[in-house]
Amino acid sequence: MTRVNKQIILAERPKGLPDSETFKFVDSNVKEPEENQVLVRTLYVSVDPYMRGRMIDAKSYIEPFQLNGVIEGGSIGEVIESKSDKFQQGDIIIGNFGWQEYYCANEKEIRKIDPSLAPITTHLGILGMTGLTAYFGLLDIGQPKEGDTVVISGAAGAVGSVVGQIARIKGARVVGIAGSEDKIEFLKQELNFDEAINYRTTNNIKIELANACPNGVDVYFDNVGGEISDAVFTQLNRHARITVCGSISSYNLKEIDIGPRVQTTLIKKSALMKGFTVGDYSTRFTEGATQLGKWLQEGKLTYRETIEEGFENIPNAFLDLFKGNNIGKQLVKVANRQ
Amino acid sequence: MTRVNKQIILAERPKGLPDSETFKFVDSNVKEPEENQVLVRTLYVSVDPYMRGRMIDAKSYIEPFQLNGVIEGGSIGEVIESKSDKFQQGDIIIGNFGWQEYYCANEKEIRKIDPSLAPITTHLGILGMTGLTAYFGLLDIGQPKEGDTVVISGAAGAVGSVVGQIARIKGARVVGIAGSEDKIEFLKQELNFDEAINYRTTNNIKIELANACPNGVDVYFDNVGGEISDAVFTQLNRHARITVCGSISSYNLKEIDIGPRVQTTLIKKSALMKGFTVGDYSTRFTEGATQLGKWLQEGKLTYRETIEEGFENIPNAFLDLFKGNNIGKQLVKVANRQ
Repeated sequence: MTRVNKQIILAERPKGLPDSETFKFVDSNVKEPEENQVLVRTLYVSVDPYMRGRMIDAKSYIEPFQLNGVIEGGSIGEVIESKSDKFQQGDIIIGNFGWQEYYCANEKEIRKIDPSLAPITTHLGILGMTGLTAYFGLLDIGQPKEGDTVVISGAAGAVGSVVGQIARIKGARVVGIAGSEDKIEFLKQELNFDEAINYRTTNNIKIELANACPNGVDVYFDNVGGEISDAVFTQLNRHARITVCGSISSYNLKEIDIGPRVQTTLIKKSALMKGFTVGDYSTRFTEGATQLGKWLQEGKLTYRETIEEGFENIPNAFLDLFKGNNIGKQLVKVANRQ
Repeated sequence: MTRVNKQIILAERPKGLPDSETFKFVDSNVKEPEENQVLVRTLYVSVDPYMRGRMIDAKSYIEPFQLNGVIEGGSIGEVIESKSDKFQQGDIIIGNFGWQEYYCANEKEIRKIDPSLAPITTHLGILGMTGLTAYFGLLDIGQPKEGDTVVISGAAGAVGSVVGQIARIKGARVVGIAGSEDKIEFLKQELNFDEAINYRTTNNIKIELANACPNGVDVYFDNVGGEISDAVFTQLNRHARITVCGSISSYNLKEIDIGPRVQTTLIKKSALMKGFTVGDYSTRFTEGATQLGKWLQEGKLTYRETIEEGFENIPNAFLDLFKGNNIGKQLVKVANRQ
C-alpha cells in the first residue's frame, strides 16, 4: 500500500546558473489524505523564470523557497482519492504543489478545472497565470492605443507571445525580439507580428529596432532587461510606457547588474516604467480569464507549448528557460490521466 | 538714443561642466518695439538645472539652445515702452527672454503679474514653474497618502523644498537628502522635515536612510539620480512611486551614466518610476498655481531664494547649481524696478 512520492528539493541556493548541486531528487512516502483533503497525482508542472528568484534567500514579493523543501510552482493534477465534499476522484485540479509526483492538498489550496472547455495545460499557460500576466501587464501598464508601436522582449516566450497577440487585437504595430530563427518564424508566421528581430544574429539591435519601429516605441513590454532593454530605451517616444515584467538576463548573474541609468531618458521622454507581478491584479483575475477565454474561443489568440516528458526532466526543463530553448509555455508532463 | 543691450550667448556646447568658453557676453543695440510689441527691461532671471540639457544638441522634450543665440530661460521684467494695447509702461511681466538686459517681446509671449499679491520673484519660484513642477510631480506621480514616507533628493533646492512641504500638507513623513549642514538645518528647522540626511558627510547613506525611514519608502521624488538614487532604491516599499524630476548628478558627465539596473527592483516591489516635465501638465497650471497661492497665503508653504546680484554674475549663478551652493530658488537680480 505504501507508494513512493518522488520529490525535487532545493538542496543548495544557487550562485549563478543553477546546476546539479542545486536540486536533489528524494523519495518520500505518499501520505493519506486527511479530512477535507484530497490526494493528487501530478500530471503537469509549470517551470517559470520567476522561480529562480525564489531560490535565493532575499526579500521579495514572494517568500523564498525553503532550503531542503520541495520546489513549489504551478501544477495540474488528478484527484486520486478524496476526503473532501468538494472534489471527487478523477477531478482535474490546479494548484501550487510543484515538483513532486503526489500531494495531499487541502481543499482550499486547489481549484477544479473543466477539461471540456480547453486543454487542461492552458490553465498553466494562456488561461492561467501566464495569460493573466500578459493581459494585465500590457493593458493596465502598457495601455496600447490603436496605431501605437509595441515592442516585446522575450517575445516568443510564454508571456511575450500572448502580449503580442493582445497588442495586435488592440490595433497596435507589434515588434518582437527573440533569440532564434525558429522563434522569429513563429512570431511572424504563426502570431502575425509585424516585425521580429533576432537579437543573437543582428549586428546592431538599435538600428534594427529603428528600422522596425519607424514611428518610435510607445509601449515596451520587457521580459529580459539587460542590453536588449538598453537598446529599446534609445527608441522610446514621448509618454512611452514600459511594463517591467521580467529581467531574465540578470537572474543568474553573480555580480550586480550594471548598465546605463534610465533617469535622464525617463525625464526626456516623460516615460513611465512600472514593475508588477500578476498577484497585484488578483481581484481582477476573473475579468482577465474570461476575456482571454473569449479571445481563445474566437480564434483571436493562439498558443504554443514546449512540453518536456518525465518527472526526472523537470530541472532540465527549468534550465532550458535560461538557454532560451522554449517557444511559448514550458511545461513538463509527469503522468498521463487515468 | 541708442541703448546697449548686454546679452549672454551660447558660444560653445559644453562637454562636462560648462566653463568660461561656454558663454560669451556680447553687446547689441536695444531694438525699438514694433506694433503689438513691448520693450522689456529684465529685472530677474531664473537659472535652472534643466538648462544644461538645452546646451547640448540632442533631441529632447525641448529644443536645444541655438549656438551663438541668447540663452533663454524664465525671466521677469518691467515694460519700459509699449506698442501693445495689453501692456503699459511700468507693468511687471514674466516671459522666457532669458539672459539679456532688454528684450522686445510680442504681447503673446509674456504675461502680466500682479506685484500686490506676492513678491514678483515668487512667479519664477514657488508660484511659477518651480512650484508647479513640485506640485504635479509629487501629487500626480508620487501620490503620497497620509502616513506614507516620502524621500526627496535635492531636497533643499527650488523644487525639492516645495515637494517636501506639500508632502507634509498631505500628512506624509518627509525625509530630505541634501549636501550641506546649512541645508539640513533649513529642512529641519524652517521646513519641518521629519528627517534630513547630509549625503556629503554620511558614512553610509543606506543605513542612514533605513534609520530615517523605519517603515520604508513609499514615494521617492528624485532630483539628482546617481548613487543617491541607487541607495534610495534599496529602501523602497511595495507599490512605491518614484517621481523622476531631475538627474543633476549626471548632467555634466562626459561618459554614459552607469549604475545598477533598476528592473529587478521595480519587479520585486511592483514599483512605478515616471519621468516628467512640467509642460506635461500645462492644461492644469491654473489649478496648481491657485492651490500653491492658497497654501502660501495660509502660511502652509514657505520658500527661500538665493539671489545673486548683477547681470555679469548669471553664468556663475548657473554654475553654482551644480556645486550645490543654492538653498531654494536660485535667481539673479539684473536691475531695480523704476
